[in-house]
Amino acid sequence: MKKVGIDAISYYVPSIYLSIESLSEHRDLDYQKLNKGLGLEKMAIADSNEDPSSFAANALIDLFEKNNINPKDIGRIYMGTESALDASKPSATYATDLVEQYFSESFGERCLKNCDVTDMTFACIGGVDALQNTIDWVYRNPGKRAIVVTSDLSKYELNSTGEYTQGAGAIAILISEDPSILSIDNHWGVATKSENDFFKPRRTFDKKNLINDIITKLNLDVSKNEFEKVFSDSEFWNNNSEIIEVFKDQPVFDGQYSNSCYIDRMQEAFIHFEQNKKTDFLNEWSHIIFHLPYAYHGRRMIFNNWLKWIKMDIKYDLLLEEIGPENDELFVKKAYKSKMYKEFVENKIAPGEKASSSIGNLYSASVFMSLLSMLNVHYDNGTEITHQKVGFISYGSGSKSKIFQAEIQPNWKNKIRSSKLFDSLKNRKEITFNQYQDLHRCKNITPISNHSIRFSHTDKEKNSKGYRRYKL
Amino acid sequence: MKKVGIDAISYYVPSIYLSIESLSEHRDLDYQKLNKGLGLEKMAIADSNEDPSSFAANALIDLFEKNNINPKDIGRIYMGTESALDASKPSATYATDLVEQYFSESFGERCLKNCDVTDMTFACIGGVDALQNTIDWVYRNPGKRAIVVTSDLSKYELNSTGEYTQGAGAIAILISEDPSILSIDNHWGVATKSENDFFKPRRTFDKKNLINDIITKLNLDVSKNEFEKVFSDSEFWNNNSEIIEVFKDQPVFDGQYSNSCYIDRMQEAFIHFEQNKKTDFLNEWSHIIFHLPYAYHGRRMIFNNWLKWIKMDIKYDLLLEEIGPENDELFVKKAYKSKMYKEFVENKIAPGEKASSSIGNLYSASVFMSLLSMLNVHYDNGTEITHQKVGFISYGSGSKSKIFQAEIQPNWKNKIRSSKLFDSLKNRKEITFNQYQDLHRCKNITPISNHSIRFSHTDKEKNSKGYRRYKL
Repeated sequence: MKKVGIDAISYYVPSIYLSIESLSEHRDLDYQKLNKGLGLEKMAIADSNEDPSSFAANALIDLFEKNNINPKDIGRIYMGTESALDASKPSATYATDLVEQYFSESFGERCLKNCDVTDMTFACIGGVDALQNTIDWVYRNPGKRAIVVTSDLSKYELNSTGEYTQGAGAIAILISEDPSILSIDNHWGVATKSENDFFKPRRTFDKKNLINDIITKLNLDVSKNEFEKVFSDSEFWNNNSEIIEVFKDQPVFDGQYSNSCYIDRMQEAFIHFEQNKKTDFLNEWSHIIFHLPYAYHGRRMIFNNWLKWIKMDIKYDLLLEEIGPENDELFVKKAYKSKMYKEFVENKIAPGEKASSSIGNLYSASVFMSLLSMLNVHYDNGTEITHQKVGFISYGSGSKSKIFQAEIQPNWKNKIRSSKLFDSLKNRKEITFNQYQDLHRCKNITPISNHSIRFSHTDKEKNSKGYRRYKL
Repeated sequence: MKKVGIDAISYYVPSIYLSIESLSEHRDLDYQKLNKGLGLEKMAIADSNEDPSSFAANALIDLFEKNNINPKDIGRIYMGTESALDASKPSATYATDLVEQYFSESFGERCLKNCDVTDMTFACIGGVDALQNTIDWVYRNPGKRAIVVTSDLSKYELNSTGEYTQGAGAIAILISEDPSILSIDNHWGVATKSENDFFKPRRTFDKKNLINDIITKLNLDVSKNEFEKVFSDSEFWNNNSEIIEVFKDQPVFDGQYSNSCYIDRMQEAFIHFEQNKKTDFLNEWSHIIFHLPYAYHGRRMIFNNWLKWIKMDIKYDLLLEEIGPENDELFVKKAYKSKMYKEFVENKIAPGEKASSSIGNLYSASVFMSLLSMLNVHYDNGTEITHQKVGFISYGSGSKSKIFQAEIQPNWKNKIRSSKLFDSLKNRKEITFNQYQDLHRCKNITPISNHSIRFSHTDKEKNSKGYRRYKL
């Protein structure tokens, strides 16, 4: 069997963050609950001159450089994102354009000329879809190498219940035959159901109502004739359309409902995963990597499965010994607080959570950041994990779950050595709550940090309304 | 070599259209030029209660029914679209939800529970990307069947130069091993370059400027204090953000520039296609299927390639005989008007253009509608085309071209028999120019046609701003 999987991983996280302590103070939230209960410490914040395409470009450039890759040898770059900057032109093309500019001196112009580039979109699971498809492509085309890049901006309304689960960043993954880090099985559990747990719709407003709103608020007396004047030759207030459709980075969501969708799809995907091959998840999987909207999300969602698995395992007697009999009405609660579950979490889940605590939600990049976090923890600790099995539980709102598994390859340490994820996260700059609010409100402010890549709008150029230009 | 490709094709086109003659009259356009020069006759128009997800659902349901497919046997449904209704939740999920509702009586609830569903976005080439990936998946997973659905709404500003290239509709394609219609080679020419020839950006407006615009137009005298009142508790005019990002179905575009991008990417993709295998396109390809923004686009764009190919062919002497020597300064013009080029167009391109003349631009579905058009023309004419080679030239703005080839399979007629594309296009209802303008301006009007599937907004439901509900 030919092995295909992950040969290298790079990342980009904005260099500024807001501490959860500061957010808690200003929003009157219980910091202890957020920190101890959800695992939150810091949220990465996008600076005023960066966006998901610039995040992606940074991660891609790092991947090429650290692995001495000639971009001409890469056959495809697929981007998973739910923060696309355009509804037609893939955000991946903005990112690959930057890569070409960056490498033009060393590799010549258009070094990605024959590279297949596109976006895949399904909330937080788009990157996993890109991964599966790219693995299939490498499998079918011997010798080819490809990249999956996931990049997102997780932004919630000020004062909303999602505000403490924001984050930003990108992960780029090199896919090849005989991969150094992870070989991925062609065995996928999938479950889909159309849901409205979290989405980013066009929000429709009636233009006349918007104007009336102003007139009412200002207590103005405007005749119908006058009113019509507004609809003259204005780019916004013209009469080409009676409605305005507004885009927002901030989603419409229902957190509790989304949790139940996550659990339901995960259960269904587990059943589907086992349809072809019964799996002893509890013992076969040494590491469980989740899509993490917040650090401790996975350990909370998987608990019922763990309890089901442990009941079928020889270790069940030990659990009963620890917490007492099943007919205790507090049995489930005790099981969640048991030493046995704690150990399960510490060994198999916590290493994948560590980065999330310092970054926040990365949407489509979150599951891959969790993998990178786990690998960095074990590298830093000197743990040998070669040939261990990794189980992946991915989820995208709207809704779909995919479950798959992989095996750590003997060369993993050589490819993680230069990663230095936790060192790099320590070297970021903390911003004040006011700076955070100004950035959130899209105030036209001077960038706080220094980036190698930054963007500007080009509305003054011909035919460029809304197009973005970037500078290296 | 295992054969994988297209086993069945279905379509949906809205049942109302605007005639190009009517548009020409009202916009003072040269109808003869549009009709004879570009091949335009009718534009399909979306009714007030349908959208790209309802188009897709209609095409999917037709594909399942005509081919007696149990939805449970379909492993994936990938959607190519640049008219997504949401930036996070795939438009494919709205469509597959409708499919599940429709078949719930015959196949039970959640008949697509374990189906992998997602959106792929790269302007008009997203469907081709979905096709390639889905073929790879079927290739790697023996016995699996999958569907690619492409659906789009091509809408341009009123009075803009793109207004006559609008259209709407969907195509659904069944992908399987040993396909009945078309076996597709694993041989792809790809060329990518980031361009701004056509895109659908977020258009940013400063809220204060929007209000000032009104105040100025109405000649009002408003103090700064008063002004601030507007930013109170309004869903639109709140102070959570200083800007408004507007979504529009209508793209920012430059037609001439986009043509040159199309040609450049196509040339580069031809070179890439031939890197592995020299191809005699002129003689090997019996049919050429293009992405068609308008009916005669392909025949205009391919001409320079044809001239290059013919110069290397034994038929070149016959061309010289027909139009005279190369040193004639009108040589190229004469070649374009030659009987030989006309025959090339009539035989290899025109059958694929026929549907486009009656529908208009379908964006991502356009290249597949061109294929379906060609197959219907030859079925209706009783032409035997089994084992003939089909070349595909696809393009997506922003920009990417993919070139690939396929072979007509012996069973194609059995799968095209029930298609009746041109009969169905004749059975649509013509709408008046006023009806067209009202629909375009998103006036809240009663639907003109009867659909089996229609949508409504659900803004009054909890947590549903911008979410869409559909009815069968």
